[in-house]
Amino acid sequence: MQIALALYPKFTMLDIVGPFQILADVPGHEVVFVAAEAGPVVDHTGRATLIAEKSFAEVRDPDVVVVPGGLGDTELQPELVEWLRAVHPMTTWTTSVCTGAVYLAAAGILDGLDATTHWAREHALEQLGAHYTTERVVERGKVITAAGVSSGIDMALVLLDRMYGPEMAQMIQLAVEYDPQPPFDTGAPAKAPAALVDVVRQLIGEGPALPAPTAGGAR
Amino acid sequence: MQIALALYPKFTMLDIVGPFQILADVPGHEVVFVAAEAGPVVDHTGRATLIAEKSFAEVRDPDVVVVPGGLGDTELQPELVEWLRAVHPMTTWTTSVCTGAVYLAAAGILDGLDATTHWAREHALEQLGAHYTTERVVERGKVITAAGVSSGIDMALVLLDRMYGPEMAQMIQLAVEYDPQPPFDTGAPAKAPAALVDVVRQLIGEGPALPAPTAGGAR
Repeated sequence: MQIALALYPKFTMLDIVGPFQILADVPGHEVVFVAAEAGPVVDHTGRATLIAEKSFAEVRDPDVVVVPGGLGDTELQPELVEWLRAVHPMTTWTTSVCTGAVYLAAAGILDGLDATTHWAREHALEQLGAHYTTERVVERGKVITAAGVSSGIDMALVLLDRMYGPEMAQMIQLAVEYDPQPPFDTGAPAKAPAALVDVVRQLIGEGPALPAPTAGGAR
Repeated sequence: MQIALALYPKFTMLDIVGPFQILADVPGHEVVFVAAEAGPVVDHTGRATLIAEKSFAEVRDPDVVVVPGGLGDTELQPELVEWLRAVHPMTTWTTSVCTGAVYLAAAGILDGLDATTHWAREHALEQLGAHYTTERVVERGKVITAAGVSSGIDMALVLLDRMYGPEMAQMIQLAVEYDPQPPFDTGAPAKAPAALVDVVRQLIGEGPALPAPTAGGAR
């Protein structure tokens, strides 16, 4: 069971490390960080660097794909879009967290499909032909998209349940002590003060329109 | 405001990336991954590598310290224990996630103090002189300890609240869409089936007794 976790410049760390932690300790899982080239990839803050063990060219037949979001989604990396187009027909599950859904959409995987992304970036999904929904985890056939950043933890537990049944998911949830107790209840725009919603939307929501990159155009 | 995130061999990724993501995007924060030597540090799964930007020797006066847990806590790294002893008197906040508390305890920071750690490793804390409590986030003076793995997200939000007040914490919580909706309610031993509790306790709880390393002993 090969699980490919995609990296690209300016990805968001928690988007990919949440699912990584849920999936990596399951016996039999080969979890691999993959990027356009093997080697270091720097996150959107510029302060965290993860190592991609393999290049997209070396991972052609993954069983599960996870695409994280990031602050680079206004300049989609063509290599990742191409790779998703190539491997999606072979996967058992194709998944995204946060604006990683924009990559799935750019690869044509969300055409006419219900999907979610970070709440402040819903227009990016709609522009690319998906139907944005406000659920935290959206499962449609073999495609699972999750909402912003931290939602990848919930998504990966749902994925484990679909792959192996509830006992495996419950065991991993217990192992990572995922019994969340946030000190506030402001994690979604419907629950947060309107002023804060406006600030966050301005900070991360107002990217330009997103042209889907042409396959192979930047190679 | 310098925030030092400690790394050591076999650390657990989500333990440190949870707090990283909550703290890194706050304006004015200098977040730095730090380890015995600058360079790559491999996590407990062997599949994820983070880069430490600086060595312990280069970070002598951090405002905030975060120590993650890991599966290496039966062989405590003496360099990290020494560094904690040296910097703790200068910090504004000293914090840990999961078995990172064992490092704080080994450095004498939890002597006679209430603290928490991963639920399956409570005996390790007690052996080193701390009073284990079952709360998810335990704040005692400037020392904050959090329970297993995923609890670092909750801990870091509490920390932001103490540092800047609720609005900053609420804004970051909204930005990372931390509106948790786990598919099961089995994230704590009191809530999970007893059989699963036994399995997880055997897998990660039964380390040998923990002698506190002697300062400088391995140098």
